[in-house]
Amino acid sequence: MLRIGISGCNGAMGRMLNETMSDMNDLSIVLGIDRNINLYNNTYPVYENPSSIDIDCDVIIDFSNPNNLNDLLNFCVDKKVGIVIATTGLSQEQEERIKECSKYIPIFKSSNTSIGINVLIDLVKKASKVLSDNFDIEIIEKHHNKKVDAPSGTAYMLANAINEELDNSMEYNYGREGTDAKRNKKEIGIHAVRGGTIPGEHTVMFAGMDEIIEIKHTALSKKVFAQGAVRAAKYIANKEPRLYCMDDLINNN
Amino acid sequence: MLRIGISGCNGAMGRMLNETMSDMNDLSIVLGIDRNINLYNNTYPVYENPSSIDIDCDVIIDFSNPNNLNDLLNFCVDKKVGIVIATTGLSQEQEERIKECSKYIPIFKSSNTSIGINVLIDLVKKASKVLSDNFDIEIIEKHHNKKVDAPSGTAYMLANAINEELDNSMEYNYGREGTDAKRNKKEIGIHAVRGGTIPGEHTVMFAGMDEIIEIKHTALSKKVFAQGAVRAAKYIANKEPRLYCMDDLINNN
Amino acid sequence: MLRIGISGCNGAMGRMLNETMSDMNDLSIVLGIDRNINLYNNTYPVYENPSSIDIDCDVIIDFSNPNNLNDLLNFCVDKKVGIVIATTGLSQEQEERIKECSKYIPIFKSSNTSIGINVLIDLVKKASKVLSDNFDIEIIEKHHNKKVDAPSGTAYMLANAINEELDNSMEYNYGREGTDAKRNKKEIGIHAVRGGTIPGEHTVMFAGMDEIIEIKHTALSKKVFAQGAVRAAKYIANKEPRLYCMDDLINNN
Amino acid sequence: MLRIGISGCNGAMGRMLNETMSDMNDLSIVLGIDRNINLYNNTYPVYENPSSIDIDCDVIIDFSNPNNLNDLLNFCVDKKVGIVIATTGLSQEQEERIKECSKYIPIFKSSNTSIGINVLIDLVKKASKVLSDNFDIEIIEKHHNKKVDAPSGTAYMLANAINEELDNSMEYNYGREGTDAKRNKKEIGIHAVRGGTIPGEHTVMFAGMDEIIEIKHTALSKKVFAQGAVRAAKYIANKEPRLYCMDDLINNN
Repeated sequence: MLRIGISGCNGAMGRMLNETMSDMNDLSIVLGIDRNINLYNNTYPVYENPSSIDIDCDVIIDFSNPNNLNDLLNFCVDKKVGIVIATTGLSQEQEERIKECSKYIPIFKSSNTSIGINVLIDLVKKASKVLSDNFDIEIIEKHHNKKVDAPSGTAYMLANAINEELDNSMEYNYGREGTDAKRNKKEIGIHAVRGGTIPGEHTVMFAGMDEIIEIKHTALSKKVFAQGAVRAAKYIANKEPRLYCMDDLINNN
Repeated sequence: MLRIGISGCNGAMGRMLNETMSDMNDLSIVLGIDRNINLYNNTYPVYENPSSIDIDCDVIIDFSNPNNLNDLLNFCVDKKVGIVIATTGLSQEQEERIKECSKYIPIFKSSNTSIGINVLIDLVKKASKVLSDNFDIEIIEKHHNKKVDAPSGTAYMLANAINEELDNSMEYNYGREGTDAKRNKKEIGIHAVRGGTIPGEHTVMFAGMDEIIEIKHTALSKKVFAQGAVRAAKYIANKEPRLYCMDDLINNN
Repeated sequence: MLRIGISGCNGAMGRMLNETMSDMNDLSIVLGIDRNINLYNNTYPVYENPSSIDIDCDVIIDFSNPNNLNDLLNFCVDKKVGIVIATTGLSQEQEERIKECSKYIPIFKSSNTSIGINVLIDLVKKASKVLSDNFDIEIIEKHHNKKVDAPSGTAYMLANAINEELDNSMEYNYGREGTDAKRNKKEIGIHAVRGGTIPGEHTVMFAGMDEIIEIKHTALSKKVFAQGAVRAAKYIANKEPRLYCMDDLINNN
Repeated sequence: MLRIGISGCNGAMGRMLNETMSDMNDLSIVLGIDRNINLYNNTYPVYENPSSIDIDCDVIIDFSNPNNLNDLLNFCVDKKVGIVIATTGLSQEQEERIKECSKYIPIFKSSNTSIGINVLIDLVKKASKVLSDNFDIEIIEKHHNKKVDAPSGTAYMLANAINEELDNSMEYNYGREGTDAKRNKKEIGIHAVRGGTIPGEHTVMFAGMDEIIEIKHTALSKKVFAQGAVRAAKYIANKEPRLYCMDDLINNN
């Protein structure tokens, strides 16, 4: 039985981790860390600071805040506890510290823990390598009408992953209009569709001579990030000290 | 048994009409008109000019050239033969003449005889009327990588048809990019995807609060225009003199 | 400002109605009816029974239980309040009583108040009428892996609506397998895809000679039923006494 | 400049190979083999039998008939010419002979030379390995209404490839119907949609907790087989003697 701790257990993602793990039989949440220790009736003890933790656990999942990371890493190294770091906005020093700590404990780091999105990126890279010579690549993403940025960060992750496979030879085209708008062989069209409450959809299309391959990811909620983080926690439990990432999990390195 | 004549029988669309009607039991091609009378082994007599036609027919389908239209109309009115006019680029005088002739014979006129596209437009207008208050409308069209204009003429037909239903209050947005690219309530996003040999695909998306309606047309070849023209010919056979259009056929007015 | 009452305000759908109307400016919830009057901190008075209501309202939305309907109808007729009835499982007597009451007050009745699904049915009927001669019709629906019935009730609503347009001449085929499984012209294939947590997706495909039309509805949550009920309430406010349904709302009869 | 020979040059697939290569600059068709040597105005000499060939070439593409294979292999080994074998229905002896010959010349063998379909299978295998624990897998294929078998051979190729990755633990379900039709965790649903003239579409869906991955291949014509065969010919030109297959080409082994 894997013993999980949640850093940021009373925040939005912490609550989702809670919900996600509530019906799993191969693990249990044994502790939480949160500055708001009394916000909910947690079924496990909640500590304001890692230093006061007085029970054992195997892996901590951290969806809290970069500010808490240093204390958390000290605790994990000290107690030989693995850690899944899903926070974003880490400083350069923190990145270095994570590398250093990964010599002593298994650390899993990812700024996007959705299994699906990472599998999508992986499949798209594979397809790009094989198909790029004879197929045109376009990305179509759909999101809700409140989203301010376009294209989405994930669309850029996809485009950049493709571009890297193709020696960074591609340009991005964000919209075609006019009587002289013929497609350039060396471009990736990226189309940002917006409407209603769409949580997030990304399609990469490879269109060739009389055949088309499309790889599509649809997110129905943000729960997918919690799912992936839990899977990462299971993945590094009992693994050797090292810095792991989504690619390791997906390709089982 | 309906007797059909094809004006422009040895041109590209004429050949498709030929192929389309070859296995139909309720009609037969009885004559053709073409300046190249000996180009193919036609199974029916081909005349260089309508004035020399010496056999009976019920409806002429014209996919030739506006230059031939005046002679053709004279023949049709004279012989009380219906006509399906699918040529584009008619002059103002010709439009007037067509109206005048339609007092004497049934005339069907359309610049896009694809049943599917016309049904699409019809459905989209209906949906726009009902959904526009609470749904965001976006159009995604896909075509081959040789197409020079974007968005496609059909995408504009769709957007304009929607806009008309909404008192022409909408603006078109051809691509979103940037950190301040939030959707405007009063816009229709039109996305022109290009790649490979895609013959033509048009999707109109209505995205609302937790639900989405999509209406999509896929063309697999240009044969759809021949199909629609034949259906139009059957539709006006034995109809009263009047000017008919795709909307009549679809809504069976 | 439209004054709305919610019958069953503390049930699951009542809560969704609450959430749905919370940010609307053209109406306000003025009262609730529920047997659990103290379950939540409602922002409006909650009555255990319609007979004790002592404030004015314009339309009641009823998502509760057929058991409450008789009292509710008495109240509405007595006070000249419109009512949206979205409960299912009504008895024959209740159906009769609703008809009778609709002589005195506007009543809107629907067992599926999703605007999208009703628009879908409407579009599909229209398309069936025009396309059935030359197009094959198939329905593909997708739902979560816990759903016990297949195809979905909505898929049957769609199939039956199509079949009615085609003089009930079609048979349903729920799956093809074998070396002698050629499609019959007079069938509608209905495919029930199941997987994960998909809330609900219905596509009707019309496939013809080199062209395909697809009409698709995607539900992202059950909130769509609340949305439709609120729209129905707005629709019947200030309308004449009569029995209204989704088709009236959609086609603005 | 690669010199290509076409075995079966005047058959349907031979003609497509012709068309496919006609505008390529890095190769030229230098000879054809066909029992009907005078059927078309070929731009290259056509031989009735390999033994009479008196000019040089680098690779032969064979889309003819297993009956011609033995003579063809003799010729290729004798002249050190590579060969792409895309015929189906080979005997056990022929399979053995191919293996033997591949010690002397590069031989590429595949019963389905579509690049897209083979990439699809490859991506699907990869996704199955990663996702199978938490995702339900369903296959939806669409074909024209004249197709007699269901599901398609390609759908079975996909299902079997997935099943192999999952230790052959899955059962296939060809259609769901009834009030007790809940999905079994250990099944792959395979849905055969039929209608109109659809050339071929295969989608593999992985549906998990709040996210879905779909991988889809659309064929617009049979030209995709010619494309893949030409790519295979380029691939083995100048390669060492060995038996190659689509997986080598795609994964560049």
